[in-house]
Amino acid sequence: MDLHGFSTVSERRKALEDHLKISLSHVGKCSLDEKKASSKNCENMIGATQIPLGIAGPLKLKNRETKEYFIPLATTEGALVASVNRGCKAISLSGGANVYSYKIGTTRGPVFYTGSIEKSKKLHKWIKDNEKILALEAEKTSNHLTFKKVMLRGTADYVFARFYYDTEDAMGMNMATIATEAIIKRIEKETGIYALSVAGNFDVDKKASWLNFINNRGIKAWAEVIISQEILKEILKTTPEKLFDVWLGKCMIGSAISGSLGFNAHFANIIAAFYIATGQDAAHVVEGSLGITTMKVMPDKSLYTSVYLPSLMLGIIGGGTELNTQKESINLLRLDKKRSVLELAEVVSGAVLAGEISLLSSLAENSLANAHKRLGRGDIGSI
Amino acid sequence: MDLHGFSTVSERRKALEDHLKISLSHVGKCSLDEKKASSKNCENMIGATQIPLGIAGPLKLKNRETKEYFIPLATTEGALVASVNRGCKAISLSGGANVYSYKIGTTRGPVFYTGSIEKSKKLHKWIKDNEKILALEAEKTSNHLTFKKVMLRGTADYVFARFYYDTEDAMGMNMATIATEAIIKRIEKETGIYALSVAGNFDVDKKASWLNFINNRGIKAWAEVIISQEILKEILKTTPEKLFDVWLGKCMIGSAISGSLGFNAHFANIIAAFYIATGQDAAHVVEGSLGITTMKVMPDKSLYTSVYLPSLMLGIIGGGTELNTQKESINLLRLDKKRSVLELAEVVSGAVLAGEISLLSSLAENSLANAHKRLGRGDIGSI
Amino acid sequence: MDLHGFSTVSERRKALEDHLKISLSHVGKCSLDEKKASSKNCENMIGATQIPLGIAGPLKLKNRETKEYFIPLATTEGALVASVNRGCKAISLSGGANVYSYKIGTTRGPVFYTGSIEKSKKLHKWIKDNEKILALEAEKTSNHLTFKKVMLRGTADYVFARFYYDTEDAMGMNMATIATEAIIKRIEKETGIYALSVAGNFDVDKKASWLNFINNRGIKAWAEVIISQEILKEILKTTPEKLFDVWLGKCMIGSAISGSLGFNAHFANIIAAFYIATGQDAAHVVEGSLGITTMKVMPDKSLYTSVYLPSLMLGIIGGGTELNTQKESINLLRLDKKRSVLELAEVVSGAVLAGEISLLSSLAENSLANAHKRLGRGDIGSI
Amino acid sequence: MDLHGFSTVSERRKALEDHLKISLSHVGKCSLDEKKASSKNCENMIGATQIPLGIAGPLKLKNRETKEYFIPLATTEGALVASVNRGCKAISLSGGANVYSYKIGTTRGPVFYTGSIEKSKKLHKWIKDNEKILALEAEKTSNHLTFKKVMLRGTADYVFARFYYDTEDAMGMNMATIATEAIIKRIEKETGIYALSVAGNFDVDKKASWLNFINNRGIKAWAEVIISQEILKEILKTTPEKLFDVWLGKCMIGSAISGSLGFNAHFANIIAAFYIATGQDAAHVVEGSLGITTMKVMPDKSLYTSVYLPSLMLGIIGGGTELNTQKESINLLRLDKKRSVLELAEVVSGAVLAGEISLLSSLAENSLANAHKRLGRGDIGSI
Repeated sequence: MDLHGFSTVSERRKALEDHLKISLSHVGKCSLDEKKASSKNCENMIGATQIPLGIAGPLKLKNRETKEYFIPLATTEGALVASVNRGCKAISLSGGANVYSYKIGTTRGPVFYTGSIEKSKKLHKWIKDNEKILALEAEKTSNHLTFKKVMLRGTADYVFARFYYDTEDAMGMNMATIATEAIIKRIEKETGIYALSVAGNFDVDKKASWLNFINNRGIKAWAEVIISQEILKEILKTTPEKLFDVWLGKCMIGSAISGSLGFNAHFANIIAAFYIATGQDAAHVVEGSLGITTMKVMPDKSLYTSVYLPSLMLGIIGGGTELNTQKESINLLRLDKKRSVLELAEVVSGAVLAGEISLLSSLAENSLANAHKRLGRGDIGSI
Repeated sequence: MDLHGFSTVSERRKALEDHLKISLSHVGKCSLDEKKASSKNCENMIGATQIPLGIAGPLKLKNRETKEYFIPLATTEGALVASVNRGCKAISLSGGANVYSYKIGTTRGPVFYTGSIEKSKKLHKWIKDNEKILALEAEKTSNHLTFKKVMLRGTADYVFARFYYDTEDAMGMNMATIATEAIIKRIEKETGIYALSVAGNFDVDKKASWLNFINNRGIKAWAEVIISQEILKEILKTTPEKLFDVWLGKCMIGSAISGSLGFNAHFANIIAAFYIATGQDAAHVVEGSLGITTMKVMPDKSLYTSVYLPSLMLGIIGGGTELNTQKESINLLRLDKKRSVLELAEVVSGAVLAGEISLLSSLAENSLANAHKRLGRGDIGSI
Repeated sequence: MDLHGFSTVSERRKALEDHLKISLSHVGKCSLDEKKASSKNCENMIGATQIPLGIAGPLKLKNRETKEYFIPLATTEGALVASVNRGCKAISLSGGANVYSYKIGTTRGPVFYTGSIEKSKKLHKWIKDNEKILALEAEKTSNHLTFKKVMLRGTADYVFARFYYDTEDAMGMNMATIATEAIIKRIEKETGIYALSVAGNFDVDKKASWLNFINNRGIKAWAEVIISQEILKEILKTTPEKLFDVWLGKCMIGSAISGSLGFNAHFANIIAAFYIATGQDAAHVVEGSLGITTMKVMPDKSLYTSVYLPSLMLGIIGGGTELNTQKESINLLRLDKKRSVLELAEVVSGAVLAGEISLLSSLAENSLANAHKRLGRGDIGSI
Repeated sequence: MDLHGFSTVSERRKALEDHLKISLSHVGKCSLDEKKASSKNCENMIGATQIPLGIAGPLKLKNRETKEYFIPLATTEGALVASVNRGCKAISLSGGANVYSYKIGTTRGPVFYTGSIEKSKKLHKWIKDNEKILALEAEKTSNHLTFKKVMLRGTADYVFARFYYDTEDAMGMNMATIATEAIIKRIEKETGIYALSVAGNFDVDKKASWLNFINNRGIKAWAEVIISQEILKEILKTTPEKLFDVWLGKCMIGSAISGSLGFNAHFANIIAAFYIATGQDAAHVVEGSLGITTMKVMPDKSLYTSVYLPSLMLGIIGGGTELNTQKESINLLRLDKKRSVLELAEVVSGAVLAGEISLLSSLAENSLANAHKRLGRGDIGSI
């Protein structure tokens, strides 16, 4: 059975139902613009998968005092929204989180096979000497892309180039690919050295890697809050000392002894739910799970907590963000028109901070499984 | 505004629409069982996010010759379904993929603070000596959970225990947590040594880690296929030599020089789309991105390709798999009643193999950006 | 000029001096047994390199109360011996360090190319089913080697086997190689599947790796001590709080943000100096640098410190340990005849603990460079 | 017994002999300048450890055609010198190795605790804005040190700065520490933000780390050679296809599946022996073990091989290089006066290349254990 030979989503779904003798009626209850979605987002489309959408918050961010953020989280895992929600409450009662973000740029990292040190040196020098020319080639491919810089590394016979681009409010992976192809064409023409692949795992796209952790990718963001002993007790049912001990044993020693790239409690949970809700590429959860949580008991027995997210791939235009339900979740956030993708990064870092505080408090009070029993009710689920 | 004070999803959504003066009409077009979903999967629920669902395949698996698998992929990234589809075609024309899976078990890894080498030794010995007693404690918590084994490591003053459980056809993270809490209670009672946290990042849940890569978690799976020179040319528009060179430069050298835990092209893309479609926990894409692709040019110029996925967290009952649209995607696969979660792992490994072959072929033929232009049409998107 | 054509060390040295018109008179002042050394330890031998040998200590170990250990450290780096010495003093004044060691076994990890999942499964099963037969094959090769266990992993087409051996008081890498070759021969004969290499980087020998960190290799050891506020002040010129802060910022957060496998201050310095002094293989410093230091401020303001060394490759017979000067350093330690290689591991872990405490104290008091200026006097050197 | 109270090496040694009732006569046969060594290189000195010194080569390097290098290797591991020697022969018969090196700079990486995002931002900005002032502060501390650049990273509350210095022909770790202390003093004075430690594991000194692998440290170097089928057969007793297969299975797949930072066969062996012979800091073997070997079968069935060493910490003045026997080994190399430390890096990379080719050939021909039996004769030893 060939799924290409259908002109509409419903015809294709119907044919599949007949062929397999199954019902796809829920999948068919899709309110997306099927024509647009099936041409831009998903080939062989037969409908839509629905992910429950919950709201955590409101969350206050100190830098944007007048706003209250309602955090959209699309998840199937009971207790997650409730947990983030509790963290938001503790943060907001503490006056809000400080957040900060910085755009590193979307990267594409081609690999060239040069065959010798001499040619690798030649290629390296040519790229460095002609960075401006390459920037122009890249920027010709889109009005929304700016060349930022290039990083070069290599063995004797392979050269890897990591090109960084500003792609405005788009995540920009495809723009970056097209720009890099233009750059490669120019390099090949001028140097006679050919790229093996426009994507040489030096991006590093959708693989957990130290290159992204150390040299960053997309947007990097930080969030922090100081929570008083009273709020810890009332909202999070724990003490600063207990939280600190759990953090040190789990996020630091536990991550060290496990060879982990995530020195945190569960970044990936919040990142996944937020990315799906707002139309991000769900495979970028891999990079989003990287990062470090820190804690410190202050002299007045309040608790300082922070999160560092070195590699957030985010956009608010293009791709999944244009879909109806995803657009509604972005609208929920009422982002500032001027620097909106950075604001998105700051909101997600605030939400991640809320998630960390709340889960670590649950762990400190040994109530993780209890929370699951009460909220998820079933015997399956996971924070 | 407090989102808890509503008894139904629609009331909560309506209140939020009023409060923020926005529309959530698409989010509201939810065909999930709202009562069930809002109690089991998602607190503060206001509706659902819809992810376009496409079908790749049919895909043949050699071990199950009579079946044809239609692969459900929920994605917003144009070109992904088409790419996997092409890989499925090449594999199926080659007689199907060999697949194999093995259940390692769902893990929970608490951390104990003992304070001294002597107490760590005591705890270590007690756990080893009483493994059967602990197994009983764990198994009392659920009829669907079997204790498999424990792995112990530690610094002088911290002890980490990694408990492995068979949780039948459920992913089982919550079952594992409850069982581990029972084990901890017994340990604490008998030894007087207390756990800092039931989850000590020694699970390792939802963080990229070498512990999961090396010692595996959930289900591990392999898939392989040999594709003739003719099929490579006709379907994938490339040659075995070119594919091999791209694989070696990108997946091996490129991953090595980037400090990557993914020696593959884009496992995460297929894993994310398949997990979302079938109701898996999307944050487990982090573990799913781990793994190794291999290639070899055979004497007859056919190409051997394989994938190794060391850490798949999968289920077919519980959690998101019970939701209406997700259940329909699982039904699509017509899994064997007897060993279905392993079959699910084998199907996803076959789909990942298809994705690897197809993307690497595109890269070898320099057609990645072209594919995006043609299929995604927009300037955003990513494989 | 061919260096093989000489029958004695001095003839070879003389010829080289003449050929290059240089003096090698110091290299020639070698008091090793040249005949033995040039046949067993070093081909094309022309003399010896001399490394200054200093003594730190005495160091007390609590488990062996009656003994005082003088730690031999061969180093060219000014300030190192003085620093370890200071740590030994603080530890000894505190009643000595608790130490503990456990023999994991020397490993050799061959790689088999099977070509298919089916053959990999067959090989895996055969090895597991015939572990006792393989143990016998291995043990036939030496009276001093005992087969301990095997760990198997693989992609679809490659199988890696990690064989663990007890090699008594020898480091045993060569014994392990010979035993593994015997095992391979048997496997090849019985299964028809061939090894690509007896050493497949699954050992992992002399490469920093998470496999060794997580699953351990050789001997693993721990050491700990509690130092009072008074001793910290008097001997180490610092406070428990400062030490803790430096440790957390440097060994934990600093190592995390650097993608490091050493969550410690400078294990490698003490390991290198001790290994060279006692005739260990200096390339095993790579594994020796792995590990974790922990600190904790106790309620009475004393400081708990520990070190965990997951992969120590050590011996007291064979290889470099048989050389005259190295043997004298081992004699210095007056090891118990019964379990001496484990005692060696415990001594080195105690010395590493001393080194960690002392350097971290220096850093806390900002006196690192000052110490270098005073002791090393030159402007070069490094702790 | 206090070892400080002696004015000469021999008095101290004598006292220790008496105290422990052992002989240290070989250790006492030290031809180093004891006064100098005991004040600059090693406190509490009692003599010297002697390491057998062998010579591999001569080795030809293409870029320096007129020279022949005799490679000094101080080792206790039988078969190592013979193995490198064989590689040198194969390389030299092939016209010599191409080598290339580049000075990255010696790094020191302090950690600052700022306590908040705002202060971290302030510190980051101040350092970036005042890089020239900091360069001046650093350069005031030594006429042999030039400030190169700074890299900054951090969590919300910690800031790590990695300062890179050119320290001419010295390895320069101590110079870098002193310069960094001057920089810190200035930063503290101007910003009021204090450093926790001059060395924050962001250097990263003597710990295996991805930061050094990816962003490099000290000197990075490459070497390559093409060896004909005939020379492979005659000297290395193998074929290009076999070598390639072993390399791919061991250095690539084997390293990937082991979580290794060394995608090579045994860099550490050659690095350790060369470092000890030439007076380098033996603990820097940890960084030296990092790196990648590549292989490729050429159309004419010759074999291309290369090595990439991302982090070589090397010097030819200061520290251990000033000792009598070490100086003689450096003299052996007859380094060019002008760019000698880079030449040293190129020689060691050529030697490492020789070691890789030779060991991989042995493994390909299954002769590793045989080589040990023949050369090391004993049952202990290791390549």
